[in-house]
Amino acid sequence: MRFFRPAIVAMDGYTPGFQPKTSDVIKLNTNENPYPASPRVTEAIQHRLEQGLQRYPSPMADAFRAAAAALHGVTPDWVLAGNGSDDILTICTRAFIGEGQVIRTPTPSYVLYKTLAEIQGGRIELIPFQRDWSLGDDFVEDVDDNLKLAIIANPNSPSGTMLSPERVLKLATRLPCPLLVDEAYVDFADQSCLDLIHEDQRIMISRTLSKSYALAGLRFGYVIAQPHMIRELAKVKDSYNCDALSIAGATAAIEDQDWLAENRAKILAGRERLTDGMRRIGFTVADSQANFTWNTHVDWPIKVIAESLIARGIFVRYMKYEGWADGLRISVGTEAQIETCLEQIAAIVRAL
Amino acid sequence: MRFFRPAIVAMDGYTPGFQPKTSDVIKLNTNENPYPASPRVTEAIQHRLEQGLQRYPSPMADAFRAAAAALHGVTPDWVLAGNGSDDILTICTRAFIGEGQVIRTPTPSYVLYKTLAEIQGGRIELIPFQRDWSLGDDFVEDVDDNLKLAIIANPNSPSGTMLSPERVLKLATRLPCPLLVDEAYVDFADQSCLDLIHEDQRIMISRTLSKSYALAGLRFGYVIAQPHMIRELAKVKDSYNCDALSIAGATAAIEDQDWLAENRAKILAGRERLTDGMRRIGFTVADSQANFTWNTHVDWPIKVIAESLIARGIFVRYMKYEGWADGLRISVGTEAQIETCLEQIAAIVRAL
Repeated sequence: MRFFRPAIVAMDGYTPGFQPKTSDVIKLNTNENPYPASPRVTEAIQHRLEQGLQRYPSPMADAFRAAAAALHGVTPDWVLAGNGSDDILTICTRAFIGEGQVIRTPTPSYVLYKTLAEIQGGRIELIPFQRDWSLGDDFVEDVDDNLKLAIIANPNSPSGTMLSPERVLKLATRLPCPLLVDEAYVDFADQSCLDLIHEDQRIMISRTLSKSYALAGLRFGYVIAQPHMIRELAKVKDSYNCDALSIAGATAAIEDQDWLAENRAKILAGRERLTDGMRRIGFTVADSQANFTWNTHVDWPIKVIAESLIARGIFVRYMKYEGWADGLRISVGTEAQIETCLEQIAAIVRAL
Repeated sequence: MRFFRPAIVAMDGYTPGFQPKTSDVIKLNTNENPYPASPRVTEAIQHRLEQGLQRYPSPMADAFRAAAAALHGVTPDWVLAGNGSDDILTICTRAFIGEGQVIRTPTPSYVLYKTLAEIQGGRIELIPFQRDWSLGDDFVEDVDDNLKLAIIANPNSPSGTMLSPERVLKLATRLPCPLLVDEAYVDFADQSCLDLIHEDQRIMISRTLSKSYALAGLRFGYVIAQPHMIRELAKVKDSYNCDALSIAGATAAIEDQDWLAENRAKILAGRERLTDGMRRIGFTVADSQANFTWNTHVDWPIKVIAESLIARGIFVRYMKYEGWADGLRISVGTEAQIETCLEQIAAIVRAL
């Protein structure tokens, strides 16, 4: 191990949510969309496949870039495509964080940000959310020269809660560094921080097609920011970071906004059903703006409940953050999956 | 720009080979395979597509890993899959190179290695090949503590030449750091360094499906090394770095070794035709072990010839390395493409 950078040897690496090898389970642990993507995605991929894959894809994913720009009312040079929004998060971290430097992010939130800082030989500063999931001014206070990037997942995971664009802008203007707003779940929310990119060059918005477009298997995400920021970020990406099929599929996906609206309506109805059901069982459930809910209880043994559920073939995510009550993060599945999940949880709780 | 790491601002970024937007050209500039991939790849992708893309793919590309392990006579824990071998090169660089540290590589060779070092805030040490494209002992001499990774493209680009496994092993054992042997083109060669992974834990072999499997558009590569090396490298990769379609397609590709053998035979016949033809025109052509040839001439204005060719819709790669004669790197196309290319070059040379 002496050959590796000490930062790599010291770190644990990120453990993604469990991916069961069988499809014979109810999988509500990694916030996937339970419905298949738009049929236009399949058509576009098939069409692209027929043209052969022997040539390199467009280095900047030109077709997607143009479609995303049209969707968001900007020009293509405001958009950088990535191999999933993980790739975007990696690119941003590599662009801003050197050894000994710092990413600041709220906690509890997406734990991958810590891994990304560690790979760079940097570290993470975790600023706790308030108990109502708002974010205090301490997020922008006590900063030093090492703070080079802030990331806010908005909507946040595991809470599903959201800061308003006004609040995010106020925080951004007080930060000495860029702020990446990770909008992985924003299509399920009532608002977005997208317009803030025009207010401050330091605000970057990342999006993914994994959740609201039901394309976790395709790996496609992007970042929207001012063109001079995009130009520097582009230097860090791999030359051909998006493949030809995913560019075709992702372009078709974001061009089918009718599908998105329909899918969103189904997920929001399911979210309401899940929230109500879990509250009726007795859980405390944060009002979610995402495609999952965060469920806690002051007395119940949450970990035991999670394990019982998994033993029954229902995969939810058990999460424990230091200084916070542990909880279950449950993705919004189909109506039938939600009903089964609620029934099983109710049965487990009754037997406690 | 003050927000970015100085290393990012200072660097130029890598410029990939030109990708013309029209398919109405003869494209011999980026060493793509001129033939479509195995039909089994298309079938496998179509089959996977029918299953829907809403779920995350296998984080470690399990199916591919198993197939690659079987092909190479190792267990799956010797294999790490990547989003193209670019992803593998990036992972290795991030794992070994910290700020101020050094990648050593021969020159002329693949210029991306320099970009990768620069993104890390490191630098590249270029050790010139001998004039016969052998690599002298100076490659392992005058090293200091900052040398953390050596990379040898073998076969090399642009020369198409190759060091023997015996030579590579001898160099590796004298290096203080890991050696990544970039075997992007090895399926077109007479030998490989693959067996060396059993000789020395510091030897890692990277492969790509872009060239010999005709899948540049799919983005798939991998590295083979001892399991304890693979475990650390895996910490650096993005969680889901390979998408579901590319895993399915890449697995089918390497399982169709009959297709590979047939394709290889066609490319080797084309390479011989191209080499003979260019020599007859008057160029000096290195004996190639890859799917391209390197063509130089002491007197002719190579850049002018390249520009004339491109103006005629034939894209070849003009390359100039400091201290070396400039040259044309020409990918082996179809028989018809080679004939057209040779005719046009002959005409351009006659008119000089």
